Amino acid sequence: MLDVQIIYSPSLLHLYDCKGKNVVVIDILRATSTICTAIAQGALSVRPVNLVEEALILKDSGYLTAAERDGAKLEGFDMGNSPFECMDGKVKNKKIALTTTNGTKCITAAKIAGASHILAGSFLNITATAEFLKNEGRDVILFCAGWKDKVNLEDTLFAGALAQLLCNENNIDCDSTLMAMQLYKENKNDLFGILKYSSHYKRLSRLHHKEDMEYCMQSNIYTIVVGLLHNEMVQLNK
Amino acid sequence: MLDVQIIYSPSLLHLYDCKGKNVVVIDILRATSTICTAIAQGALSVRPVNLVEEALILKDSGYLTAAERDGAKLEGFDMGNSPFECMDGKVKNKKIALTTTNGTKCITAAKIAGASHILAGSFLNITATAEFLKNEGRDVILFCAGWKDKVNLEDTLFAGALAQLLCNENNIDCDSTLMAMQLYKENKNDLFGILKYSSHYKRLSRLHHKEDMEYCMQSNIYTIVVGLLHNEMVQLNK
Repeated sequence: MLDVQIIYSPSLLHLYDCKGKNVVVIDILRATSTICTAIAQGALSVRPVNLVEEALILKDSGYLTAAERDGAKLEGFDMGNSPFECMDGKVKNKKIALTTTNGTKCITAAKIAGASHILAGSFLNITATAEFLKNEGRDVILFCAGWKDKVNLEDTLFAGALAQLLCNENNIDCDSTLMAMQLYKENKNDLFGILKYSSHYKRLSRLHHKEDMEYCMQSNIYTIVVGLLHNEMVQLNK
Repeated sequence: MLDVQIIYSPSLLHLYDCKGKNVVVIDILRATSTICTAIAQGALSVRPVNLVEEALILKDSGYLTAAERDGAKLEGFDMGNSPFECMDGKVKNKKIALTTTNGTKCITAAKIAGASHILAGSFLNITATAEFLKNEGRDVILFCAGWKDKVNLEDTLFAGALAQLLCNENNIDCDSTLMAMQLYKENKNDLFGILKYSSHYKRLSRLHHKEDMEYCMQSNIYTIVVGLLHNEMVQLNK
């Protein structure tokens, strides 16, 4: 079985040694779910950038620009951070430069921390991601983006779900992993039920993103694995 | 109902505004359980200090000195960090200067962060602590010490137990609180059962502290409330 540690917040990243490990960045609502969707819908790549200015610069190189802050799409960009903006052929054969409140900066941070593969975690392709990690055989770190560095429910829930596919509860040396696995186990038959109590559900509901959330909580509608290659998130399995 | 937020690690403290709130510092195994025990066993006060040198300086002022690092008692100190060292009249009418790996530094940090009351959280006096907080009526922050800033199971479990006494699940705006309450709810009939999977249980078992852990997981053997007054943890209710 793999050694699986879970980081609940970017503010805890410095406590973990990511060097040579496979890191799954998790921002279920919505960055990593949207990245997965964009690739599944035929985008060539999604480039995560930290600053809105970086995304705008990439526009000149032919990228679609996507920017979200505090749950809302920013003015002057082609897209926000909704998976539905990737549908109906809009992203097919395009490169996208994406900056979001939480998720995209974690991809950059994991790279700086020396991770081996850096994958985008989402329920949408959870089984394919788990199989990829098992075939790789390296130690795994599940890195939750949270909300402005605070721990959040949906990322922890997904981390627990993925951990359950990768390791055995009796053989874990990380309390965060134990707790996330138990959280998932208790709620696996009604993920949306527990999500409704979460702070981000309330935030995104106010911003009329309920369909996004229903979409992002679906399991295994894609079989692709999405990870970083030369600064761009791309399909790793063919 | 009170607003209750839970901080899972000292590395997340900066994300929360503690000013004017009542903060419960939680280091179940063992600092805050031992502080509670010392006061219940007649110690005049326990002074939390960050450095071993500070504890040694206080020896000249008549303090008993207590120091623990990595689970073990340090050489040259009167005591380590075991509640059993407070039994049999050993601490009666004494002042104690205590430094530990995790818990004591959190008390100092909560003070710097501008907390109103700073209480020592433990299962040993959980109901008395909850009643005190409810009577106070201020917003509450439950501050888990963790292990070297990593999230741990026993502190989260206690935070969930205390939150359950203070607030209603349907009215919470903190995902950490939601998750800790669920963790407690699922394990409340066998706290020791889940504890056995935790990393600190394994660590303290190797150091022959099993009796300490059994002791610290008992609920309501004391009715005192322990909190900071002029740099010393004392009994707040009389």
